[in-house]
Order: sequence, then C-alpha cells, then structure tokens
Amino acid sequence: MNKRIAIYPGTFDPVTNGHLNIIRRALRLYDHLIVAVAYNPRKNPMFAVEDRVRFIREAMRGQKNLEVVSFSNLLVEFAASRKASVIIKGLRAVSDFEAELQMGLMNRNLNDSLETMFMIPSQEYSFLSSSFVKEIARHGGDISNLVPKGVQREIQKLKMRGE
Amino acid sequence: MNKRIAIYPGTFDPVTNGHLNIIRRALRLYDHLIVAVAYNPRKNPMFAVEDRVRFIREAMRGQKNLEVVSFSNLLVEFAASRKASVIIKGLRAVSDFEAELQMGLMNRNLNDSLETMFMIPSQEYSFLSSSFVKEIARHGGDISNLVPKGVQREIQKLKMRGE
Amino acid sequence: MNKRIAIYPGTFDPVTNGHLNIIRRALRLYDHLIVAVAYNPRKNPMFAVEDRVRFIREAMRGQKNLEVVSFSNLLVEFAASRKASVIIKGLRAVSDFEAELQMGLMNRNLNDSLETMFMIPSQEYSFLSSSFVKEIARHGGDISNLVPKGVQREIQKLKMRGE
Amino acid sequence: MNKRIAIYPGTFDPVTNGHLNIIRRALRLYDHLIVAVAYNPRKNPMFAVEDRVRFIREAMRGQKNLEVVSFSNLLVEFAASRKASVIIKGLRAVSDFEAELQMGLMNRNLNDSLETMFMIPSQEYSFLSSSFVKEIARHGGDISNLVPKGVQREIQKLKMRGE
Amino acid sequence: MNKRIAIYPGTFDPVTNGHLNIIRRALRLYDHLIVAVAYNPRKNPMFAVEDRVRFIREAMRGQKNLEVVSFSNLLVEFAASRKASVIIKGLRAVSDFEAELQMGLMNRNLNDSLETMFMIPSQEYSFLSSSFVKEIARHGGDISNLVPKGVQREIQKLKMRGE
Amino acid sequence: MNKRIAIYPGTFDPVTNGHLNIIRRALRLYDHLIVAVAYNPRKNPMFAVEDRVRFIREAMRGQKNLEVVSFSNLLVEFAASRKASVIIKGLRAVSDFEAELQMGLMNRNLNDSLETMFMIPSQEYSFLSSSFVKEIARHGGDISNLVPKGVQREIQKLKMRGE
Repeated sequence: MNKRIAIYPGTFDPVTNGHLNIIRRALRLYDHLIVAVAYNPRKNPMFAVEDRVRFIREAMRGQKNLEVVSFSNLLVEFAASRKASVIIKGLRAVSDFEAELQMGLMNRNLNDSLETMFMIPSQEYSFLSSSFVKEIARHGGDISNLVPKGVQREIQKLKMRGE
Repeated sequence: MNKRIAIYPGTFDPVTNGHLNIIRRALRLYDHLIVAVAYNPRKNPMFAVEDRVRFIREAMRGQKNLEVVSFSNLLVEFAASRKASVIIKGLRAVSDFEAELQMGLMNRNLNDSLETMFMIPSQEYSFLSSSFVKEIARHGGDISNLVPKGVQREIQKLKMRGE
Repeated sequence: MNKRIAIYPGTFDPVTNGHLNIIRRALRLYDHLIVAVAYNPRKNPMFAVEDRVRFIREAMRGQKNLEVVSFSNLLVEFAASRKASVIIKGLRAVSDFEAELQMGLMNRNLNDSLETMFMIPSQEYSFLSSSFVKEIARHGGDISNLVPKGVQREIQKLKMRGE
Repeated sequence: MNKRIAIYPGTFDPVTNGHLNIIRRALRLYDHLIVAVAYNPRKNPMFAVEDRVRFIREAMRGQKNLEVVSFSNLLVEFAASRKASVIIKGLRAVSDFEAELQMGLMNRNLNDSLETMFMIPSQEYSFLSSSFVKEIARHGGDISNLVPKGVQREIQKLKMRGE
Repeated sequence: MNKRIAIYPGTFDPVTNGHLNIIRRALRLYDHLIVAVAYNPRKNPMFAVEDRVRFIREAMRGQKNLEVVSFSNLLVEFAASRKASVIIKGLRAVSDFEAELQMGLMNRNLNDSLETMFMIPSQEYSFLSSSFVKEIARHGGDISNLVPKGVQREIQKLKMRGE
Repeated sequence: MNKRIAIYPGTFDPVTNGHLNIIRRALRLYDHLIVAVAYNPRKNPMFAVEDRVRFIREAMRGQKNLEVVSFSNLLVEFAASRKASVIIKGLRAVSDFEAELQMGLMNRNLNDSLETMFMIPSQEYSFLSSSFVKEIARHGGDISNLVPKGVQREIQKLKMRGE
C-alpha cells in the first residue's frame, strides 16, 4: 500500500498547545504529516506566514515524518500536489463544527477522493484558540501553559515594540 | 509499518445508505475495516444483532479488507482486542456532534492511544438516520433510496407479520 | 389562483398557548388551515387523540377557515389527500431546529412540491413545550398561563383520578 | 382575498444557486415575490448593489410575478411600503438559525403583522453561502455549480482586473 | 444581610466527580448550600433516592454549611419552603444549555424572585454525566476517576447481584 | 462572612434594557455589584468608554451598592484588585453560550478562585443585543423599548451629526 500522507491546514496565528496536541496525535496515524500554514493576508494575522511556519518547526524540532510549509492556493489543490489523501481538522466546540462541516463538504465537492477527518484535541485544550491567546497576551495575561515557549517569547517581543 | 486497522461501531438498526457511504469512504483509508455492531438489548432494537450484522454483510458482499461482527463489551476493549488504532464515527448534525465529542473524550480517558476520527457522509445523507427510516417505514412511506435492497425487503416482511 | 391550504401537524399532547399562537398566525396567511393531530400511540400520549383534537377545537371555537382532525398515515400522504401545498412548523430552540430540518428534508424527499415553512411563536412562548406543561402539572405547579382553560381543567381531572 | 406578496431579503453578494432555489420555491407559494437586495455599504460587499440586483434578474429572466429591487431602509418599513405580509428567509445551518430567530423576533417587535417564514433550500445547497463562493473564487477554485453562469463570468472579470 | 441560601437540584443517579466539583465551588459562594435530590420515579433511576442522597453525604462528609436532602414537589416550591434565593445548575455542553435555559425561564415564570445561576465545572468534567458513568459501568469499564469511591463500590455490588 | 462583591463586565456599546435587567437581578444577590465597562478600542465602539459608563450610571441613578467603572486590563486582574469573587455574565442564545464557556474556562485557568456565574435575562430580552440596537437605529427604526431613554437620545444626536 502507498504511503499515507495527511495534511493539517490552518492559520496557526500563532500555533497553540492544542494544535501541537493534534499534530502529535496525527503523527501516530499517518506515514507523513504536512502541517500547511495558510498565507491568509486578508485575515490580517499577528505574525507573518514565515514566522507562523517557524514557530511550529521549532516546537516540533527533531520530529520525523513531519513537514511544516506555507501554502496560498486552494487547499484541495495543494493537497493533490502533495498526494495527500486526508485533511486533518481539530474539532473543539459546536461553533467550530458547523463551519468545518461546511468547508469539508465544499472541499469534497471540489475533490471527492480527498477525505476530511476530524480529531479531538486533549480535553485540556477543548476551549483553547489562537484568538484567545492573542486576547490574553494583549492584556498582559499569562499564556505560558497555552503556547510553546518560542511563541511566548515572540509575543513578548511584539508587545515591547508597542505591538 | 503495521497494518492500519479501524473500527466503525454503531447500532445499525438497520444499516442505511449513509452508513454504507461511510464504510466505503473508510475502506479507502485503512488496511482493514471492522464494522462493529453493538448488541445493545437495552435500546430495544427493531432487528436482532445477527440480522443487523447480516444486512451489512449482504450489502457489502465481495468487499475486501472488510469484516462485520457484533460486540457486547466496552468499545475500547473490543478495539484493543482487535489491535485497532482508530474508531471511525460519522458526523451529520450538531446534535450528533456533542454526544460524539463526549463519547470520544470518555473513550480516550479509558485508552489514550485509541483515536476517534470523525468523517462526513455524502451530503445527500446528511440528515438520514436509522430511526428516521423506521419512522417512515412504519407509516408505509417509500424507503427504497434510504436503505439497501435487502433491508427494505426485511422491513416489508416485519410489517406483513404485524410488526 | 387556487385556494391555499396549509397543514399544521403535531402531537399536541396537550395543545399549549404556543401552539395556539402559531395557529392564529398561520390563519392570517392561508385560505384554509388544517391542524393535523398525529395518532402516535407509540409515544404513549397523556391524552387520547380524540381529546387532543377536541381541546384545539374548543380553544379555537368559531374560527373560520380552520379544521382540526387526526391522522395516522404518513404526513406527506395526508397532505396530498387534502391538497395542501404547505406544512407549517413552529420553531423555538436550536434543538427543535435540527430535528425539524431533518424531517423537512425527508418529507421533501418523499414529495418535492410540498413545502415546509417554519414560523416563530411569540417570544413569550419561545421555551414552552407540551412536555414541560405536563412536568409542571405533575408536580402541582400553576399552568394557567401556559395552556387554554379547557386543557387545564382536563389535566386537573386526570390528577384527581390518580393520573 | 388580497394578492399575497412575499419579500425575500438579503445581501446576495453574489446570488448563489442556493438563493435561486429558495426564489423558485417561494414563487410557487405566493402571488408576487419581491427579492430585496440590501444596500449594506458597511458590509463592504464584493459587488455594488446594482450589480447584485442585475445578477438575480439575469438568472431569473422571464419569470413572472417576480421583482428584484434594492432597498436601504429598515426591512419592516420596506415591507410595509410594498404591502408584503411575509418575509422569506432560507435556513441552512444551526448558526444561521439563531441569528435569524433573533432578527425575526426583532422585526416582529417592530411590526407584529409581518410574519417571517423560514424555508429550507434543496439539500445540495445546505452548506452553500456567498462568502464560501467568494473564498473559493479568490483561490481560483471552480464555482461553476455554485452560482449562475453570469455571476461566474463577473467574478472572473474581477479577478482579471486584480480584484 | 440575610443568610444566602442556594439550592443545587438534580437527579444525581449517581453523583459524579463533576457534581462534587460544582458543590465545592458553590460552597465558597453561599452561606448555606442545599443539594436537593429529585425523587423522580418516572425516570426509572438506577439507585433509590435514599441511596443517591447517602452517596453525596458520604462523599462530602464533614463539610459545613452543606445539607443533602431529597424532594418530590415542584422545585420552586421546595426552594421557597427553604428560603433559598438561588438555584445552582452546572452547565457543560450546548445541549445542556438549551434545556436548562427553558427550565430556568419556566421556573422564573413560577417565581420571579428565585434566580437560576449557571456554573461551569472544572474542564476535566466538561463531558462527564451520570448516564455516561452508568453506560461504562454496565460494560465493565473503569469508573474510578469519574465517581467517588463509595459510588464505585455500590455500582460493583449491583453488578454482582446481576444488576 | 465577608462582603460579597460581583463584577458584571461587558462592552455595553450601548447598554440595553437586557443589560439593565441583569444588573437589577444581580443587585438582589450580592452585597456590591461592579459594572465593568471594557475599554476595547480594537472593537471600534460606537460610543467612547466614558459615554458607555455614563449611560449605565444615568439609567441606574440612585441605586445603592452599585458602581459603574471602566477597565482596560485583564478581567481577572481587575476582579482581583477589587476583591470580587464572582463574574456575572448574561446568557441568551446558544451562540453566546459557547463563547462564554470558553472565556469562563480561560479565566478560571488564570484564577481558579474567581467563579463565573451565568444569569438569564427576562425572556423579553432573550434576543436583544447591542449590535442589534445599533443596526435598527442606523436604519431609523424605533428603539424606545430596547434601550434606556438617555441612550435613545444620544443615538439620535449621533445620527443628526451624520453618524
């Protein structure tokens, strides 16, 4: 049987411990995992796409079978170009679920052989999101158990430069 | 790498075309798929567990890498005994999702290395459920595009015998 | 143009002021409204279907263009036999909505020219349901502003006879 | 009985096949249907309101009893000025539903005799939205089965001009 | 100011660590907390109401300002008889929320000065419920980190006697 | 026992009758209530924070045990600096609930002894929100039964100045 390649796409602005939890879980299930960071300039991200890629690489340093890249084209096309058979999405709350269901059905509409698989992060990350991390950081709250060390440092730096 | 074994558990009372859609999708993604029909006498099913197993076997006849069996112990234990690394669940509506999220977290609590993966059935089956099929059949409605032929015949027979 | 006939189906066990609110609203919009009380013996109703029909008739006495009947066949067939073009459903909470969406799509599957239209009851009835009325009555609570007078009397009688 | 006039309001930026499905369904139920395109400059639409009106007119060309216009005042006032008795809204997902329920109750608060009726689009359009169409188009995806031909051409043109 | 008395009602069949978490949190906020175990014979509980009361008493032994009692009348009447000003409910998932919102509004309808306050259990108990505990126990799963020791022993005994 | 201090935080842009309903209900339950208006310049509010504070003060004039202030730091830190033991949040719809559950768990993560308590506004305000008020006002709709008199006047003034 062929190598099983999965893609875990997202904005990761910035990556949280909940994202890393999904990455570690997915790595146990597929031969190769591609974390695909969306360029997304329209969403006006806090960090440039290169930084968002780097944060994940640093947090997962030394991990085999893992690749972290950015992409700016349509997800189903990116997946096809990388011969991935599966898109991985993390599901937390109900509000997540509906948007993801819509997106999953639309992507299937574009390519029926690419399957979206939803995974649940560990319960301690059930309610963690990048936007929440940014909100807390903005007000000077402690984010040390929410994001990897590297991200915490970078957010600190941003704040010192006046954001 | 080891053979990747997935389990698709459910009551399947009776199996619908939506279930079959998930089975076919999952078969493309794993080396071996075990459809596990829960004994569930407390739920007072319309069909005995042997019948529910047989309906799925007949509908999927000739399919390789597929096994249909019944089970009555705890799902995580059944999965361990079969060396499955993944539980497959189909997700349709929001109400599905919350119950499945709870069950997925509970099962992880019992065995953290067994991952629950949620899949979406084809959109035409988004709102199809076994209980809906039974409700329509009870009132003499047409279920021919909702369940496999064999199931339709069996439900017909039940009705002739006065249910 | 033909007479526009709508059907408002339900178990109405018993009818509440929220149901009556939908009936009054629908009467303004259609030439003829049929309130269709489902026989539903499997749901083990508190009141026989004849009583459930009678309660609505009494509460809406003198109303033109309104008919209250029971039915036991498939809703889409009952609607066709009465030349109705529309099924009316009241929507309250999110949990209502998903089940109704499923039912609406299934009914369309059976008859595409019969349209389901959802209406919102007045806000004071947003969270009122027959099962809630029964729960309160069982514990001796005051249901006088939740159901019509006649229903209140009948529930009283049931309680006196030991339920 | 008077002519029954319904209004189907929205931003329609741009109209999708799901919107057209609701328009066709509503046309069977009312004597006259007014598709009312909201001016909405605050939402920063992709297309000017005149274009959004024109797209719907072109897609429904030749249809009797249909009128497509823009409006910028309060919906309940626009409806009153046109003697409409009903507002039509399409319901897809649960997230839709809550916002629409709120809006429906607020509009009733402003005019109790104007009824909001919710309809379900055909299941194939259950998860289709204008914003999804724009997202796919932006990334060069195929939208030919999501919007009418005319809209597809216009989006193409926008992209050629650098959006 | 008067003593602040809160009531935490439920079926508690059986009490879980999630319930105990809410009890401990509520105890910090009120002068006196009454855990009120509903008699509820219609729900066909696994444990008699006296047992359900006893389990909570044993788990909270030595706790001041706490009282555990059963009740069989309407909750708002029980609360009035005990001069409670607040009903405490634990909120976990979205499905919980809608039912509780309905119940809270209904209870307010019966007594506007009795306020329902919703609390969140610790995240580790977000998806824990009595019915889940029973389901796992029935299949021989490990419930030791879901319920207090005493409850675990009693469920064991039930199982030995053949349930 | 110590004075019980609760905080009711929000953007209040502007305060609605639904907010005032929660304030009045909370005042009956705590010794001291602090309404904390978030500075929130990123949300681009319609009214400056001083105005938002003033509107609430005017609407609640003469009320004892009530304080209305603005804050710009992290909510849990503001609460600690004021020795509050409870955060009050109003819950309306399901969509509210999930965001609030996330926020409540995050705040607990930052300070476990600060409890978030959810209250339900009177049913007539179940679907009222500040953004809805602004939407209606923008289109010249009547908001007199949605906000206090003072707010209505101020919105009028804004409109005269061309918004």
